[in-house]
Amino acid sequence: MRQSKLFTKTKKENPADEASKNAELLIRGGFIHKEMAGVYTYLPLGLRTLKKIEKIIREEMNAIGGQEVSMTALQDPEIWKKTGRWDDDVVDVWFKTKLKNDTELGLGCTHEEPITNMMTNFISSYRDLPMFAYQFQTKFRNELRAKAGILRGREFLMKDMYSFCKDEKEHDEFYEKSKVAYMNVYKRVGLGHITYIVFASGGMFSKYSHEFQTITSVGEDLIYLDENKGIAVNKEVLNDDVLTSLGLKRENLVEHKAIEVGNIFTYGKRYSEPLNLNFMNETGESNPVFMGAYGIGVSRLMGTVVEALSDDKGIIWPEEIAPFKVHLLALGDSEKVTAQANMIYEQLNEAGVEVLFDDRLENSAGEKFADADLLGMPYRAVVSERSITAGGIELKKRTEEKGKIVSLEELLKIVSEKN
Amino acid sequence: MRQSKLFTKTKKENPADEASKNAELLIRGGFIHKEMAGVYTYLPLGLRTLKKIEKIIREEMNAIGGQEVSMTALQDPEIWKKTGRWDDDVVDVWFKTKLKNDTELGLGCTHEEPITNMMTNFISSYRDLPMFAYQFQTKFRNELRAKAGILRGREFLMKDMYSFCKDEKEHDEFYEKSKVAYMNVYKRVGLGHITYIVFASGGMFSKYSHEFQTITSVGEDLIYLDENKGIAVNKEVLNDDVLTSLGLKRENLVEHKAIEVGNIFTYGKRYSEPLNLNFMNETGESNPVFMGAYGIGVSRLMGTVVEALSDDKGIIWPEEIAPFKVHLLALGDSEKVTAQANMIYEQLNEAGVEVLFDDRLENSAGEKFADADLLGMPYRAVVSERSITAGGIELKKRTEEKGKIVSLEELLKIVSEKN
Repeated sequence: MRQSKLFTKTKKENPADEASKNAELLIRGGFIHKEMAGVYTYLPLGLRTLKKIEKIIREEMNAIGGQEVSMTALQDPEIWKKTGRWDDDVVDVWFKTKLKNDTELGLGCTHEEPITNMMTNFISSYRDLPMFAYQFQTKFRNELRAKAGILRGREFLMKDMYSFCKDEKEHDEFYEKSKVAYMNVYKRVGLGHITYIVFASGGMFSKYSHEFQTITSVGEDLIYLDENKGIAVNKEVLNDDVLTSLGLKRENLVEHKAIEVGNIFTYGKRYSEPLNLNFMNETGESNPVFMGAYGIGVSRLMGTVVEALSDDKGIIWPEEIAPFKVHLLALGDSEKVTAQANMIYEQLNEAGVEVLFDDRLENSAGEKFADADLLGMPYRAVVSERSITAGGIELKKRTEEKGKIVSLEELLKIVSEKN
Repeated sequence: MRQSKLFTKTKKENPADEASKNAELLIRGGFIHKEMAGVYTYLPLGLRTLKKIEKIIREEMNAIGGQEVSMTALQDPEIWKKTGRWDDDVVDVWFKTKLKNDTELGLGCTHEEPITNMMTNFISSYRDLPMFAYQFQTKFRNELRAKAGILRGREFLMKDMYSFCKDEKEHDEFYEKSKVAYMNVYKRVGLGHITYIVFASGGMFSKYSHEFQTITSVGEDLIYLDENKGIAVNKEVLNDDVLTSLGLKRENLVEHKAIEVGNIFTYGKRYSEPLNLNFMNETGESNPVFMGAYGIGVSRLMGTVVEALSDDKGIIWPEEIAPFKVHLLALGDSEKVTAQANMIYEQLNEAGVEVLFDDRLENSAGEKFADADLLGMPYRAVVSERSITAGGIELKKRTEEKGKIVSLEELLKIVSEKN
């Protein structure tokens, strides 16, 4: 895409009303726009990254047998009353609204109740199990405060998967598979090296739940990691009983701040019983379905990448989720540079390489370099009088200090490689 | 996909609480699930079609220079008060809700106000114009009644595009382009032959707006079509003045019921003036931006396809939006049929053909045929003892009465063709 056509523009100054690095950088770069606290519009560059993260998650959920659906925001209170979760004292993040006839409705903050209720239409026998359904859907949560940018929104995109099994054994098998799928997601979005599966409180329904925590200096959670064993526990379950049962010793644990980028829960019959989601087993006996839930905040994951991987110049997008792979900069307005840069832009497009082309005439070289650092595409390719004289294009990774001169052929080869 | 794994199931009976054909067929087929009146979950088959329609619209909007964004449902009243549209007496379909601190918010029923407001950050000069931004986004409309299935929902997916131009001339150029793009969409979803551009009321801001109306016997609108001239007018503007200005004669007009599947509006300065979206022109003068809006209800379009193209046996999906291109049926449970059908399934998958494989063992041939008709994939490929004896696979288009025996090679060739 030609940057001269992109309607968003970068800003030099941080927004005055944001406290988090992710919101500052994403707003300065024109990836997102703040509608109100915790409520953000995704602009063209930001939406490209969000969609790429969504695609990665979709592929990993499909790989473990997930079937995609899309549920609704508007919620019927009757279903939630059956599980006792309609009351604002029980679920304290409800947004509620009303139909014209004064019937109260809710805006979905999660979807256990409607999906369990819906599945009574489709699950009746052990032959229908196991089954896994997921969605990408906008959640609404009436947070008292929303100061963490896209890490904790009042309206945000979430992937939520729900599993339906005949018993705990069948459930456990899928639960273990989901861990692998989740770690694949974190690897592919570029956070694999700093993301850990963490034991956390299981609540009433199982001994533990599991969180996926990405270590960063700004995380709201504290985790305790045994690096040798690769096992971590959340502060909330850090006690002698838990340590003993996991074979961990206090002296081997290192404390880290971390951001929760996903969680998986075993529910058992918590929702299937009150909502009458039963199945007939092999011997003709009716039993509640054994359930689990698996969440990833898609926008939260995007925010975490910005928090964890940016430097003081701007964002550093990992390749698989960068809005564009290459940021091509034309410096100066000489005919030679313009012609050369246009030709390279076309060649990259033809080769199927996603490229943002800074073809703006009114901007200085310094401004273009600063924008390239702020916007954070994996490769910066500069065409200038100097690069042409030196024999080609100056290519630099976002993570490198210095570039090198390459030919067009070399450029195409390097940026076409899967890394 | 193997139908034995698909969690949805077809139903023989129409749902008791639906009055529209689209809801009846889509629910019976397991494409959608009703959460409440006008609020539907998209199930795996339905979501595939919805996403394909979205993809077509995205391609056509990108082709005319649209830049994709994703705005929010939660709405700040302050922006809407500036245009006078916060009041329930002015906009009678608001859903409203509240933050914890009692601040009132709205749920977006349309997005003129927030996008106009946002663009004050990005538009300042004639050099920023023209610019076109669009989104696929969930709209909330508090309709008094919602009995038309996915034709008129309280929560539904819409594509809305907004254009920003320096003057009426620049606007008119894009407006004409948008008509072509819209007609491309209707052609690609299979409604081109029965969809017309219709002159409708322009409201306060321009002489006409334009609607895109698909002729069906259940439409809520009445249009008057001059088939020779290919010009149609909505009943609301059917008067002598309009007819004269369009060069139409009453006696040449035929009345049709039709469903509105899109509309385009010229706003001029209606929103830019109250929201201060101005630009500096070539001579340094500040002027309000000249705006237009372009809507297509994505789910409504899907419902229209069902209303317009189904027969008494079920849905007939056009190829480009069918959940799967081929419905492969294995009849009987003989080893020979099972092995042959599995092999064909794999070959189709390898060839990149989207195929739904009815590999269910407990269902009769009659049930499988009825399901194939109800679900409406463009091609039905049957593998049975009889088809194998006859030398291959019985292939039939959904629109054909009788099938013919083809070899695997012929099958692959026919279903790989773009039609």
